[in-house]
Amino acid sequence: MTMNDLMRRLGQVSDLEAAARLLSWEQEVSMPPEAATGRGQQLATLAALGHELFTGPDTGALLQAAQPQGETQAAVVRVAQRDYDKATKLPTAFVEEQTRAQNEAHHAWLEARAKSDFALFAPHLERMIGLARRQADLMGFEDHPYDALLDDYEPGMRAAQVRAIFADLRARTLPLLTRLRQAGDAADYSVLTRPFAPEAQKAFAWRVAEEAFGLRRDFARQDESAHPFQSNLSRSDIRITTRVEPYWPACCFGTWHEAGHAMYERGVSERWARTPVSSGASLGVHESQSRMFENLLGRSLPFWERYFPALQAAAPEVTAGLDPETLYRAVNRVQPSLIRVEADEVTYNFHIMLRFELELGLLEGTLAVRDLPEAWNARLQADLGLTPPDDARGVLQDIHWSAGLIGYFPTYTLGNLLSVQLLEAARRDPGVAAGVDRAEYGPLLAWLAEQVHQHGRSLTPNELIAQATGQPLSADAYVSYLHRKYEAIYGLNAVTGV
Amino acid sequence: MTMNDLMRRLGQVSDLEAAARLLSWEQEVSMPPEAATGRGQQLATLAALGHELFTGPDTGALLQAAQPQGETQAAVVRVAQRDYDKATKLPTAFVEEQTRAQNEAHHAWLEARAKSDFALFAPHLERMIGLARRQADLMGFEDHPYDALLDDYEPGMRAAQVRAIFADLRARTLPLLTRLRQAGDAADYSVLTRPFAPEAQKAFAWRVAEEAFGLRRDFARQDESAHPFQSNLSRSDIRITTRVEPYWPACCFGTWHEAGHAMYERGVSERWARTPVSSGASLGVHESQSRMFENLLGRSLPFWERYFPALQAAAPEVTAGLDPETLYRAVNRVQPSLIRVEADEVTYNFHIMLRFELELGLLEGTLAVRDLPEAWNARLQADLGLTPPDDARGVLQDIHWSAGLIGYFPTYTLGNLLSVQLLEAARRDPGVAAGVDRAEYGPLLAWLAEQVHQHGRSLTPNELIAQATGQPLSADAYVSYLHRKYEAIYGLNAVTGV
Repeated sequence: MTMNDLMRRLGQVSDLEAAARLLSWEQEVSMPPEAATGRGQQLATLAALGHELFTGPDTGALLQAAQPQGETQAAVVRVAQRDYDKATKLPTAFVEEQTRAQNEAHHAWLEARAKSDFALFAPHLERMIGLARRQADLMGFEDHPYDALLDDYEPGMRAAQVRAIFADLRARTLPLLTRLRQAGDAADYSVLTRPFAPEAQKAFAWRVAEEAFGLRRDFARQDESAHPFQSNLSRSDIRITTRVEPYWPACCFGTWHEAGHAMYERGVSERWARTPVSSGASLGVHESQSRMFENLLGRSLPFWERYFPALQAAAPEVTAGLDPETLYRAVNRVQPSLIRVEADEVTYNFHIMLRFELELGLLEGTLAVRDLPEAWNARLQADLGLTPPDDARGVLQDIHWSAGLIGYFPTYTLGNLLSVQLLEAARRDPGVAAGVDRAEYGPLLAWLAEQVHQHGRSLTPNELIAQATGQPLSADAYVSYLHRKYEAIYGLNAVTGV
Repeated sequence: MTMNDLMRRLGQVSDLEAAARLLSWEQEVSMPPEAATGRGQQLATLAALGHELFTGPDTGALLQAAQPQGETQAAVVRVAQRDYDKATKLPTAFVEEQTRAQNEAHHAWLEARAKSDFALFAPHLERMIGLARRQADLMGFEDHPYDALLDDYEPGMRAAQVRAIFADLRARTLPLLTRLRQAGDAADYSVLTRPFAPEAQKAFAWRVAEEAFGLRRDFARQDESAHPFQSNLSRSDIRITTRVEPYWPACCFGTWHEAGHAMYERGVSERWARTPVSSGASLGVHESQSRMFENLLGRSLPFWERYFPALQAAAPEVTAGLDPETLYRAVNRVQPSLIRVEADEVTYNFHIMLRFELELGLLEGTLAVRDLPEAWNARLQADLGLTPPDDARGVLQDIHWSAGLIGYFPTYTLGNLLSVQLLEAARRDPGVAAGVDRAEYGPLLAWLAEQVHQHGRSLTPNELIAQATGQPLSADAYVSYLHRKYEAIYGLNAVTGV
């Protein structure tokens, strides 16, 4: 009986969260503009009621009294207890202070970025860092305050582990990047901005997402929004968004990226429905799926050999005089850039490692907020040979810190690394490897469903990675992949033993 | 302080209801099909939590302790207390039984209608009638159990009042209908099914809704759904839906109908935001606004004289050889039909009066459910000269009874009557009359906002009608309007003193 009561309570919390996700999604894709204030209020109410319902003393009592039967219920109680402990560690007054500070910081950041004036944002960032330190103290940690923050996004992951992986990654990719920066163009990149009708772009991107990755309108839909994202109310109610830009591959790769997130959520076992287990294991594991679809598959030569005819049919004027291999080279251009979200597979992680190091310095107190722009620019110059012309295109470019998201950035690179580590593990199955090599992803999708998707949050990222790949997370697979792929594209001599 | 607590509580309930409306709206316009089960669960949770929050003992205490300041707060407390008393009169066990029975009845009705087999639905309808009687007993009433049911849709309205108005309406429109049935065609009706591109239909309908009635994308949007409806999360977040049929006026008049509902919600004073006062006074008053836009304005000659050029621009092939007056005659065809939702201004109310009488008989026990189809068909034959070929096109055509909505039907006709009574009251202002006569509705909209919209639920329908028109609701204005309009269209001699 108690277990039923607990499941009922968790189901209600889950339904409230699902409703909030629909309100948020709709806000981005179709809401009338004047509705913004009311929508914010509705979302605040849903969040407050969901939090109240989940953290109320009776939930604690239900968890204590629960006698789970079998593995499914055991995982529900374990994950719910973990969430409950974390949610109840922060006093309401602290959460309210944090929410207020984030609101103010977000508005200050918008203005600072618009005016490219870091000084406007600096006091708010200082406050965010102070709150993050207090949050870490309230949550508790063994080694480093960063651990307590990272745990929100990568349960069980530690700063020391990330630091070691990143040091290895930097040491082994910086030489490759240096060589690539000296190489010439590998293709005519102007084909990537040929005119391509927006509706045709979206239709092509979706068609491929359906055929290659199994995303179907029975349980998912696609809309446009300013910033692409995936959201879902359940594994049968998934939404992805995309945007159309002059650089037409943005719509395609964005769609396939979100399709990776979508198919992860789709693959979580139905037995976790309406429980806190029903989502991805972490942001990093989620990103491994989106990056795999976007980059490892979507930016592979077999993929373009297979889908080039569909692209020709969708946009004959884009493909005129083009062949699959040239297009493959073009969409894999390596070019250091100022902006993280525009970066390629080789340079992207440098943007992340930079942010991670700065976050550590700010939290440890070895880096003052006022010195942040200088530290940012110095690191970017050292790694990518670029200096931002202004802070808007430098330290102010990301929304994360203004939203109090400190400890979030590493998950992007962890996801990149994991995407290759998982794909290589999957390729040990000859059926998967053969399929991937001719862009038939059925066997790979089945492997991912079995090894990754179905488990939801019942495994921690480190548990899942060890179980699925037989190894702890490392940079090894990713570094080899970068060398193999980009030395070939840019005609460089292969370096062994990297 | 207590008043603030009450306002906060009512705001939360209002936000939960708004969220539920977005989930319901989205279910009809864009939800992936496999999401249906989960969506039902989410809606049930939101309804249960909203009900719990509103009917909990602390809401009762807050209402008792509230010391409202000024007219706005007084109305909030008055309406909230009325809702609270009604909501707490029904025991939870009864509400749950009703919900279960409605679910089963709805499924039985779907099957019965598909097979045109009333016997499949009859036991469920018997159960619905039994539950309605018990509900009336639980709610309490003075004269007639129907009063307790009608009060949910028309607060303060009584069955005796409706019965008297309907008797008058029947007596004074049946002779007109008889004469119209003997008249010939007033136009070539085939123009109403000329091909009209769906996107162009919707764009034309919206453009006119914006220009004529003030519906703007800043606060409203339009989508397609199987059954047109209006819904909103607040006065700044309104949605209407439409559908496209071979009979192209369906999209136009449907859009303008929903625009009437939308502009009512838009006009409710912002001071009632997030309180139970923030909606229309009743279903009947709501329908008076939708019918006014759809029929009194949208099916008027000045309207088509003004918007005919826009229609020509939108669909030259539809308007070829047509002129505004012929189109006006065509869209005002009077033709008895089996189906309520397809009925014109003259015959529509007969469909309603029939249902009202049958509901009274069922509730009073003078009509047995098994005799219902026969009673239905006899009344339809007597009034409209038609007999349904099967029960699907007769007694099984409407969803209402299967959803437990008994006492709902009269609101449609009350709305029709009120639409004319209000328009005539508004026309006593010469500026309004002059505007309406050249299809410039600014002055009328201002009058409606002042006399009807702004008050929300702070007035009962009878209070609002008396205040706005100086008279109690009656059939007088509507009967005169029908005679005036349709005698002219069909070239009949005017009958005086009807």
